[in-house]
Amino acid sequence: MFNTITIVGVGLISGSFSLILKEKGWVKKVIGVSRTSQSIDKALKLGIIDESLPLEEAVKQSELIYIAIPVDATIPVVLQVMDLVNEKQIVVDAGSTKQALCEAVANHPMRSRFVATHPMWGTEYSGPEAAVSDAFAGRTCVICEKEKSDADAVHTVETIYKMLGMHVTYMNPEAHDIHAAYVSHISHITSFALANTVLEKEKEENAIFELAGGGFESTVRLAKSNPSMWLPIFKQNREHVLDVLNEHITQLRKFKSCLEKENYTYLQELMENANKINRIIK
Amino acid sequence: MFNTITIVGVGLISGSFSLILKEKGWVKKVIGVSRTSQSIDKALKLGIIDESLPLEEAVKQSELIYIAIPVDATIPVVLQVMDLVNEKQIVVDAGSTKQALCEAVANHPMRSRFVATHPMWGTEYSGPEAAVSDAFAGRTCVICEKEKSDADAVHTVETIYKMLGMHVTYMNPEAHDIHAAYVSHISHITSFALANTVLEKEKEENAIFELAGGGFESTVRLAKSNPSMWLPIFKQNREHVLDVLNEHITQLRKFKSCLEKENYTYLQELMENANKINRIIK
Repeated sequence: MFNTITIVGVGLISGSFSLILKEKGWVKKVIGVSRTSQSIDKALKLGIIDESLPLEEAVKQSELIYIAIPVDATIPVVLQVMDLVNEKQIVVDAGSTKQALCEAVANHPMRSRFVATHPMWGTEYSGPEAAVSDAFAGRTCVICEKEKSDADAVHTVETIYKMLGMHVTYMNPEAHDIHAAYVSHISHITSFALANTVLEKEKEENAIFELAGGGFESTVRLAKSNPSMWLPIFKQNREHVLDVLNEHITQLRKFKSCLEKENYTYLQELMENANKINRIIK
Repeated sequence: MFNTITIVGVGLISGSFSLILKEKGWVKKVIGVSRTSQSIDKALKLGIIDESLPLEEAVKQSELIYIAIPVDATIPVVLQVMDLVNEKQIVVDAGSTKQALCEAVANHPMRSRFVATHPMWGTEYSGPEAAVSDAFAGRTCVICEKEKSDADAVHTVETIYKMLGMHVTYMNPEAHDIHAAYVSHISHITSFALANTVLEKEKEENAIFELAGGGFESTVRLAKSNPSMWLPIFKQNREHVLDVLNEHITQLRKFKSCLEKENYTYLQELMENANKINRIIK
């Protein structure tokens, strides 16, 4: 399918992306671009990339450039890559926020060679060693502003994500960021805050070590996520995240008030309402 | 190991308990006691129990009586069973709170035949059909007030849990309830509240359906838990749960304040601190 692609960033997302494309034989050569030589060494060793080059040279050789780095760095790097590409090359990003990026690239002369995507898959781990070859499958990939990208570019990108087993959907950047705040960003904040709650209050760490079971692990595992990735997401999606966070605190205060007032009828109702999440996650 | 045991309640915990004991050949006959004939029918069909009897008759035939029902019902049922047993029989409960129960049984003449336990394993599902034969393994079981139970009873109960693959630890009932508030009960409240947040604010349900990924699922899955089980737990452990919930709201407000004030240095610190949970869950 491709002779050569470049991945910018050699972490969880781009690493998994590359591993699968190579494994399936959809790409002959993957060039890696990263600021950290340590990550490059790991990515080479893990077979994620075939060689490492400076961005400019890498782009020159590549049919597709896949950018998966923290969302604050994404904007300047996407612009820089768009300055370098011709009308046959395709630029794709995989960031968790879309509005600021889409605004930043809106007037670029090569806007039509860029496809803004968010493959909604991830784990709490980061770096090349976190990359896995069973990533993406069964999840949704959002493509924003499809109409601003050339049809051939969109078609190629859609085809790749579908071949990765993803369901592709379309959204405007603002709608994406609002929904992402609900189904992803707030989960990370609650998890970070829950970890801090336990670390703050639970002095007898040995007891947590021993007792922490499946329920605790699943609600708190996102607290292991990389702050360098999440800080820029929270910054860029600040307003929507704040909106959801305010609502979440309001909901928690309802539980608190029920317990304080021993209003168990309402507490029961709150839990029964929460059970409706059954309709959404099976 | 046993000829006959009784399980009171035929749900997730007692059902899994019975399935494993039967599968391993550690018990010849399991009698089920339940208020709901529908659950009995299911438990019989699933091979969880061999027959169903009224409590009194069931206890008469059993070497061990395993009680795993909502914690408010546990107290009267444990007392009732203790009224029926002789000095060779063993009574065990599997409830998620321990202080109220241990106080209630403290002066019973057969206190020494009772062992207060909390096998810290569970899923968000309930009922006999939720029972699985790979339950318990790798998790911790807390035994409270070991010194108030006869040595032979404790030894038998410990042996069973260890054979189930559990790590057995000892705690006084209050310490148990405090730790349980941190490592289990608060996770359920945050999950219930997160489900309500999303259900309240996210009107376009189709978007959640499509986008909800692994992170969301893992933080919200406990919201599917059965309110009939959790309401009594929150009631009995009200003070400790309130204490942890207050701290959790405080922690969330720190994230909120950072976003409002755009204090990203402190936001980064909060996340870095949360990463320390790595030490506790691998």
